[in-house]
Amino acid sequence: MSDKIGIWLVGARGGVATTAIMGLELLRQGSIPSWGLVSAAPRFASAGLADWGQFVVGGHEIRPGSLLDSARALASDSRAFDVALIDQCRPGFEEIDAAIRPGTIEGCGNAIARLADGAHVIRATSPRSAIASIQRDVEAFATQQRVDRMIVVNVASTEPPADVVALPNQWDAWERELSGSESRIPASSLYAIAALELGCAYINFTPSLGSDCSALRELALSRGACHAGRDGKTGETWLKSVLAPAFAARNFQILSWVGHNIFGNLDGRILDDPQNKASKVTSKDHLLAEILGYAPQTHISIEYIRSLGDWKTAWDHIHFRGFLGTPMILQFTWQGCDSVLAAPLVLDLVRFAELAMRRGEVGELGCLSPFFKSPQGAVAHDFSEQIRLLAAWVDRKE
Amino acid sequence: MSDKIGIWLVGARGGVATTAIMGLELLRQGSIPSWGLVSAAPRFASAGLADWGQFVVGGHEIRPGSLLDSARALASDSRAFDVALIDQCRPGFEEIDAAIRPGTIEGCGNAIARLADGAHVIRATSPRSAIASIQRDVEAFATQQRVDRMIVVNVASTEPPADVVALPNQWDAWERELSGSESRIPASSLYAIAALELGCAYINFTPSLGSDCSALRELALSRGACHAGRDGKTGETWLKSVLAPAFAARNFQILSWVGHNIFGNLDGRILDDPQNKASKVTSKDHLLAEILGYAPQTHISIEYIRSLGDWKTAWDHIHFRGFLGTPMILQFTWQGCDSVLAAPLVLDLVRFAELAMRRGEVGELGCLSPFFKSPQGAVAHDFSEQIRLLAAWVDRKE
Amino acid sequence: MSDKIGIWLVGARGGVATTAIMGLELLRQGSIPSWGLVSAAPRFASAGLADWGQFVVGGHEIRPGSLLDSARALASDSRAFDVALIDQCRPGFEEIDAAIRPGTIEGCGNAIARLADGAHVIRATSPRSAIASIQRDVEAFATQQRVDRMIVVNVASTEPPADVVALPNQWDAWERELSGSESRIPASSLYAIAALELGCAYINFTPSLGSDCSALRELALSRGACHAGRDGKTGETWLKSVLAPAFAARNFQILSWVGHNIFGNLDGRILDDPQNKASKVTSKDHLLAEILGYAPQTHISIEYIRSLGDWKTAWDHIHFRGFLGTPMILQFTWQGCDSVLAAPLVLDLVRFAELAMRRGEVGELGCLSPFFKSPQGAVAHDFSEQIRLLAAWVDRKE
Amino acid sequence: MSDKIGIWLVGARGGVATTAIMGLELLRQGSIPSWGLVSAAPRFASAGLADWGQFVVGGHEIRPGSLLDSARALASDSRAFDVALIDQCRPGFEEIDAAIRPGTIEGCGNAIARLADGAHVIRATSPRSAIASIQRDVEAFATQQRVDRMIVVNVASTEPPADVVALPNQWDAWERELSGSESRIPASSLYAIAALELGCAYINFTPSLGSDCSALRELALSRGACHAGRDGKTGETWLKSVLAPAFAARNFQILSWVGHNIFGNLDGRILDDPQNKASKVTSKDHLLAEILGYAPQTHISIEYIRSLGDWKTAWDHIHFRGFLGTPMILQFTWQGCDSVLAAPLVLDLVRFAELAMRRGEVGELGCLSPFFKSPQGAVAHDFSEQIRLLAAWVDRKE
Repeated sequence: MSDKIGIWLVGARGGVATTAIMGLELLRQGSIPSWGLVSAAPRFASAGLADWGQFVVGGHEIRPGSLLDSARALASDSRAFDVALIDQCRPGFEEIDAAIRPGTIEGCGNAIARLADGAHVIRATSPRSAIASIQRDVEAFATQQRVDRMIVVNVASTEPPADVVALPNQWDAWERELSGSESRIPASSLYAIAALELGCAYINFTPSLGSDCSALRELALSRGACHAGRDGKTGETWLKSVLAPAFAARNFQILSWVGHNIFGNLDGRILDDPQNKASKVTSKDHLLAEILGYAPQTHISIEYIRSLGDWKTAWDHIHFRGFLGTPMILQFTWQGCDSVLAAPLVLDLVRFAELAMRRGEVGELGCLSPFFKSPQGAVAHDFSEQIRLLAAWVDRKE
Repeated sequence: MSDKIGIWLVGARGGVATTAIMGLELLRQGSIPSWGLVSAAPRFASAGLADWGQFVVGGHEIRPGSLLDSARALASDSRAFDVALIDQCRPGFEEIDAAIRPGTIEGCGNAIARLADGAHVIRATSPRSAIASIQRDVEAFATQQRVDRMIVVNVASTEPPADVVALPNQWDAWERELSGSESRIPASSLYAIAALELGCAYINFTPSLGSDCSALRELALSRGACHAGRDGKTGETWLKSVLAPAFAARNFQILSWVGHNIFGNLDGRILDDPQNKASKVTSKDHLLAEILGYAPQTHISIEYIRSLGDWKTAWDHIHFRGFLGTPMILQFTWQGCDSVLAAPLVLDLVRFAELAMRRGEVGELGCLSPFFKSPQGAVAHDFSEQIRLLAAWVDRKE
Repeated sequence: MSDKIGIWLVGARGGVATTAIMGLELLRQGSIPSWGLVSAAPRFASAGLADWGQFVVGGHEIRPGSLLDSARALASDSRAFDVALIDQCRPGFEEIDAAIRPGTIEGCGNAIARLADGAHVIRATSPRSAIASIQRDVEAFATQQRVDRMIVVNVASTEPPADVVALPNQWDAWERELSGSESRIPASSLYAIAALELGCAYINFTPSLGSDCSALRELALSRGACHAGRDGKTGETWLKSVLAPAFAARNFQILSWVGHNIFGNLDGRILDDPQNKASKVTSKDHLLAEILGYAPQTHISIEYIRSLGDWKTAWDHIHFRGFLGTPMILQFTWQGCDSVLAAPLVLDLVRFAELAMRRGEVGELGCLSPFFKSPQGAVAHDFSEQIRLLAAWVDRKE
Repeated sequence: MSDKIGIWLVGARGGVATTAIMGLELLRQGSIPSWGLVSAAPRFASAGLADWGQFVVGGHEIRPGSLLDSARALASDSRAFDVALIDQCRPGFEEIDAAIRPGTIEGCGNAIARLADGAHVIRATSPRSAIASIQRDVEAFATQQRVDRMIVVNVASTEPPADVVALPNQWDAWERELSGSESRIPASSLYAIAALELGCAYINFTPSLGSDCSALRELALSRGACHAGRDGKTGETWLKSVLAPAFAARNFQILSWVGHNIFGNLDGRILDDPQNKASKVTSKDHLLAEILGYAPQTHISIEYIRSLGDWKTAWDHIHFRGFLGTPMILQFTWQGCDSVLAAPLVLDLVRFAELAMRRGEVGELGCLSPFFKSPQGAVAHDFSEQIRLLAAWVDRKE
């Protein structure tokens, strides 16, 4: 008699969501191995994490189309996975498609607005009414599916940076702003508010603001909800968080660290807008100085190269000084399929967040730091240390 | 009134020894920063490690020449470091040159024997008499320099693999073999015996056998000596021990890991002999399976490419499978100057071993695992874990 | 009323043959563009090359299976091409499968012999009787299909190096050896003899001996047949023949050129046998010195890495000296799908050889040099020069 | 009794000029081999090019300092060449330093103006008076040194793009503008005018405008002067002009070509200014479409990374489609020392231009196309074709 857990995906037909849904379906069927899932590694075998069969999925989406179309595009345009896997997921796709509702594009910037389809966008007179609409959708799903716990995950496209300095620090000031017609609060935070007010867990897999501000930290605590974020650490930045601590341990002086990223999926198209790109570059760049204790010259670029589709390719050039002042070089090239890297981490986050909910944890889940470029509620950026802390948290006896 | 510590280098005019001696000299003068030295990282600042001024250096060498010649060759042929640094070390070089004694080439294989110069090789009627000769040199140096503790470090060229299975397990059986004229015991082990019998610490920075067998473990314990080894982890293998645990944590399936190494220094010339190369490849290859818990296909090559001199260049191609079975690729290219990478680790090892001697530690120093490809007395191959254990050992209160 | 041209593939269900057959089928249907085909480049548009619809295909194969199986394995195991393309080729595959006959494994070495299936190998009492059997197959196909010209192409696995020095130089001495029971003549040459005696063109896309010896040159001339070879230049070596002449023009001194190749297809499995590998490495290595006019240190490796399937990945490290003696470095990584690179070149060769037959050319077709690592009857190894000579040959007015 | 040839370098103490002067000095002494010099390749051995001993050097510079300082900075900060070579050039350096005169910064943009030192900048009331000042310097040098022919070479930092559309097409309209106080004509063109009016050859090794406009083409013809340009093709772009034609010959479809360049010399510092960078990127980017006949997506970045000094490192990612639509990848990493690559090409250009002057050639020297990213008076961008045309021009019998 196991519990039923709802996953509510914001950006439900995007590449990450589609791949996560496909993977969940195939894992439930037992037709794929669990490679790529952190939570399926041996060290978490006895952690009591939820089974794949316990999950049901719904979500919001501002674009038309179907999960089947999204999956086919990933397989054919991007060679993301074997096209034969898609057929096994068709019934599941149809069921979930029926549970996907229109979303909001409040504060998402022009690049995202251009993607949106009128029929798939919530019309709301104020942020508060947009939140109410989101909450009605989530609650209707929860009731109909009889879920015990619900986790809202933001896997939508990256918004332009929110003007955090201009936003108030207290929740009651936000409350007032939500009722006005002129709001500076981005969609990612509206979803976060909707989730936290309902007592759902909220996970922000994107660089958008989401719940990463003091007002929403206050809200989460007051509602007894937990949340985590920000910006999934899937490829190049993950390698940075692996390599930089090792260079620090060897006491090499990093002279410069250059990282060039190229890719061609929808996310890349959105990031091609300078406003939206700013959020991403900031999120990728800060951790080096935090790991090293000094700030070497860095340069990060992210460019939209159509032909690469979902294959994010990164070249990193690490120039460092060793003994006797001798400069040396490490270069790496990473060729990873973005959705395929991100999707299992979304499922991992949902499983660990669900465990936190069962344990009654409230507020920012710092223990989920290995999954994020800018981990809320955590300080360590060293991936091996983050994994150690996650394992220690899981193993903790209540 | 600080103690005086002797460093006795086997292979005292090789690239690693020369660079270590140069670095020690320049550190003593305060004329270089301490980049590249693990023991100089902030976390060991209050560990009470010996100061650079406490060390004196001597050693064995089977080739003619001077430290000045070796240093110049590194600077001009290999562009290993700024040639201007050499002049500052001339007095130091001359003093140490005078303390370098002929060595033994017992069991070193033909490639090494061809390098040796008759006038710089010990003539001995038995292994035991070679050991006695080594011990006379070490003791004479210790007495003359009034050293308090002495550490013997093997930085000589790699020997062919010793036939460990054929060698006896008990120290008393070795004793008998040492007195015969037909011995299968390689030079690296003769030096180890000489050191351990005198109560010196013995450190094996090479893939040669050294003290890594049960008979010598027995000897070390009986004499109250400590020892560590085997095969310094400087570049490509270090990166393996950093990256592989991270891939394991992400639960990626390693499909294959190919590593091609090219370099052109003397070490490379010796490794170009298939016998000697076998020792190295074995030492580089095993740790992957131990970290991952399964054995992916691996391929390692080490080739002598004259023009590269001391610049060891490695290309690694890591083919791995993620979620939904999608294969992805990480490649890296490492361009490191071999002697410049190894030399500071030798100095680190000496400092940590000296601390162990002061603390009265006996037997294999497993805490020194971050420094070795095949760490004696240790199980972890994960570099971040090894560093954590080293730090914990250092911080341990007696 | 255009002529009909027969293509006879030796190794007819291997990766290269399967991909060539598939491509020919799809080109005939007009369902793929002609990227990858040299002969389809604008400069050859008015050369009067044969149309895709003029070709019919048969061949020899020593392994069981079907073209459909081979194509599916390439699509699924190696992700060589879109699996959806296969369905469009099914009728064509079945027709050609029916025209594939058992082959000979004379002198192919153990690695190839292990692949062969008894039911698909010619039993012959002497090389001559094996040739007679091959010729019966080719002639039966030609008659049945009413072909006007026939081209035999060797795309079988690489044989061990033939002992060319031991083989006689004159064709009449070969004639005698062919009738004996003890022959040192490898299968690739038996096929070449069979083809040339029938007046077919013979093309050797492999490093095996084929027609590359004076006795067979004599045979070709006496029979008025043309032939070309040896060892298709598809990827890494092609890049060498592009880059090395450019380095020579800049007057850079190549200090060393290291090339490591990894791949996991059947060809790779065969090359994993040291005997067979020797043929390949020799063929890849010689052209550098011929282009540069001096022999820098080179190192070439080819390793079988199962997980890579048909994706041949090469890392080349080019160390060169420029002005003032400064050493600099170019590295490249090539990720090419072997069959997909080779197959169009096979079709190109057939088209150009057919043009040569129409023009009445006899002997070695040196003009086909851009396609080969060891071009018979040609001296230039510079790819741009080779292409210029090919274009000049094509444009030549009779 | 050979002729004396003057080389007048604009930017005479920059990295390229300093290295060219050093190289010339060492070649004259016979103390370095001629690697890196196109004109020293065997194919030009009998071309009758001027000997190194025939050249004398002067120039303009807007910064203070000495050639010795510049050379030392290249050797120590950038490891550009062996520091021991510098001592051999000291007398030559001093002599040439004495012949270096203040320059103009008209239209060079703020980034360059910030570098300039007041005492080393010509004060002129109009462009015409600046030209007159330049001409006085050049003529005084020519007279004093009794040179027979004089070649002015622009190796100064890159200017922002000139507004070519706004500039008049006829020389007489330029004449009027030169006398006004408000001129849109950049310094590079003022130097070109000064040179061409004096009948000197003018060579523009930078992306700045120089003589690349119809008015100056008119001027050159009317004065019987020859000129060449624009933007030396030293590293990454050179490789593009080598590889792209080869990809075209194989009929591969280039899907995207991404090139990231990082380096840290003065040139890089100037290019870090967006205005100046625009000139460079345009010059690097156009040739691909011209070689291929269609325009794939391209992306080029040039970033100033201080620690790299003169070592220009480029990563190129070439995504291309072959047969059956299969996408494949070539990546290369280029590690070249910028000044060491450029300097010999400057000497080559001077030698070939001097030959052209002797032959009485007038106008744009299209035959010098292999040396330029945007070759004036030439169409071919294919490096092998360019070299062939250069060799044919040299071999031409008058």
